[in-house]
Amino acid sequence: MWYTKFGNMGDVVLSTRVRLARNLKDKPFPNRADKSQQEEIIDILKAAAEKIENTKFFDLSNMQEREKKALAERHIISPLLTDNKIKRGLVLSDDQRISVMLMEEDHLRIQTMHEGFAIEECLNSAMEVDDILEESLDYAFSEKLGYLTCCPTNVGTGLRISVMVCLPGITMAGRIDSLSRTLSKMGIAVRGIFGEGSQSLGNIYQISNQVTLGISEEETAQKLSEIVSEIISQERSLQQKIYLSDKFRIEDKVMRSLGTLKYSRVMGSEEALGLISDVRFGINLGIIKETNLEKLNEILYSILPAILSASYNVETVADRDIKRAEVIREKLG
Amino acid sequence: MWYTKFGNMGDVVLSTRVRLARNLKDKPFPNRADKSQQEEIIDILKAAAEKIENTKFFDLSNMQEREKKALAERHIISPLLTDNKIKRGLVLSDDQRISVMLMEEDHLRIQTMHEGFAIEECLNSAMEVDDILEESLDYAFSEKLGYLTCCPTNVGTGLRISVMVCLPGITMAGRIDSLSRTLSKMGIAVRGIFGEGSQSLGNIYQISNQVTLGISEEETAQKLSEIVSEIISQERSLQQKIYLSDKFRIEDKVMRSLGTLKYSRVMGSEEALGLISDVRFGINLGIIKETNLEKLNEILYSILPAILSASYNVETVADRDIKRAEVIREKLG
Repeated sequence: MWYTKFGNMGDVVLSTRVRLARNLKDKPFPNRADKSQQEEIIDILKAAAEKIENTKFFDLSNMQEREKKALAERHIISPLLTDNKIKRGLVLSDDQRISVMLMEEDHLRIQTMHEGFAIEECLNSAMEVDDILEESLDYAFSEKLGYLTCCPTNVGTGLRISVMVCLPGITMAGRIDSLSRTLSKMGIAVRGIFGEGSQSLGNIYQISNQVTLGISEEETAQKLSEIVSEIISQERSLQQKIYLSDKFRIEDKVMRSLGTLKYSRVMGSEEALGLISDVRFGINLGIIKETNLEKLNEILYSILPAILSASYNVETVADRDIKRAEVIREKLG
Repeated sequence: MWYTKFGNMGDVVLSTRVRLARNLKDKPFPNRADKSQQEEIIDILKAAAEKIENTKFFDLSNMQEREKKALAERHIISPLLTDNKIKRGLVLSDDQRISVMLMEEDHLRIQTMHEGFAIEECLNSAMEVDDILEESLDYAFSEKLGYLTCCPTNVGTGLRISVMVCLPGITMAGRIDSLSRTLSKMGIAVRGIFGEGSQSLGNIYQISNQVTLGISEEETAQKLSEIVSEIISQERSLQQKIYLSDKFRIEDKVMRSLGTLKYSRVMGSEEALGLISDVRFGINLGIIKETNLEKLNEILYSILPAILSASYNVETVADRDIKRAEVIREKLG
């Protein structure tokens, strides 16, 4: 699948995601809709989404809990879509690059994803999907404000661009907090791998725009693109600097992490993510040659808790930790 | 060399050492002898020791500091013999199983060594050497007390039997201190790998008799032999018990230690000894099959600080730590 592929600037950027929040005119927001309204809205949205090629519809209430959580861990759906409070749906393309969430916080959350640094590709693809849907749907739109959304922070473009990066260099240099503060002042959020409120694991961060009002989609993309480019070059130069400051210590650190991944028999996901980050670092610096970033991405998206549970039918934390170590060993060869 | 070989009860016992303390009649103890007396005594001892087959004499004042320390790390000579306070000598057999230290604390310290649990072999061999030397030397001997020695704790047989064991099971079970206290009451000492006052490293301990007066050589050997046999069976049963109490955690621990040994690029000796002990544990339990105890013994006796310095011409701690990791990787293959 796309999310394990090595993309543009793949040494730093894991993937790019764009989402557009849209709502139907004259229909209550999902959290205000009663049971019959929920079904009515889903039916309308589902019919419109059928026109997007190579996609399938999924009724989330018929999907296994761990399957849903596994989709959320791959960022294909949001965590909110996994709860069963109301009727929710998903239109997912066969290549899993396009995911239209029905009855999330908004009626529609159009999401497009791409490996590596690919804001333009994602934005274009999202716009196309948006156009297809708009042919048959009547969006809640204000000439003055733009698209109307359930949460005021999304009003306007309804656009969130999110770039997932792995920043061992900036993190080891102790600069992540100051970077985060600086970007915050510019309307850019830095979050952990699992979004709002999530802890940073494995030095993985999501860089995303916070402003949707009074700025066009193109400007948003342009601005975020510039900022992420700057972060990439900072990260690369810090990785080199850290390495050169103590070559043996860094070689030791990344090789030990590789050894631990290859030899452990029990491993939690937090530890695994940290070790994967170290090995990424080692590959980027040319220290580690026996594996590659594509393989590491594959491991990353195989060993998260719900993904593991769903793929290998392991339920308890203890069994998962054993299976995780086994999967890592097998995939590292 | 013998010290890397896998011997009797080699899963627990690394090696056995016997030493006999002897002094010449009518000559001052080494620490009381003046320069010319030191030379005179050495000459007498050297001449007598020439009759021991396949041995060479070494004048310790002509030996490089690190060579001497490397011999001490292999327990072929005592740390005291490495200081330059007085003239000291060594008669060493080609197979390094027999080492006669001249002008240590006593005029003569006859030492014989064997891989594994081999008290009888060592004692017989030491007695033979003793007999050869006694043909030409006049020992300080009292009918009432036995052999007279510099330190009163050695008077009598002058015998110390020392069995070097690796006890991860007893250590992990938290029983080493109580074992040590119990044995102490029975006149048996439990010391770290480098003898008196040395810290225990890598769960390696030396079990040795403390009493030399009023007990024969054979009784001493018999008693220590029984005690060590009991320790061996305790250690084996605790290893099994610990393993069965949490198989995955133990497998994880020993495999990670193997991974760290195989992948690290910088390693101190203390860490290395701990990891080697874990891997020994893993081999004993049948978890680790890709290496063996003989190879681990070889590693153990390659990576101690002075041995490394002497073998690879590395002087600083930093360079040694890098070379140590390299040697371990190479030897583990």
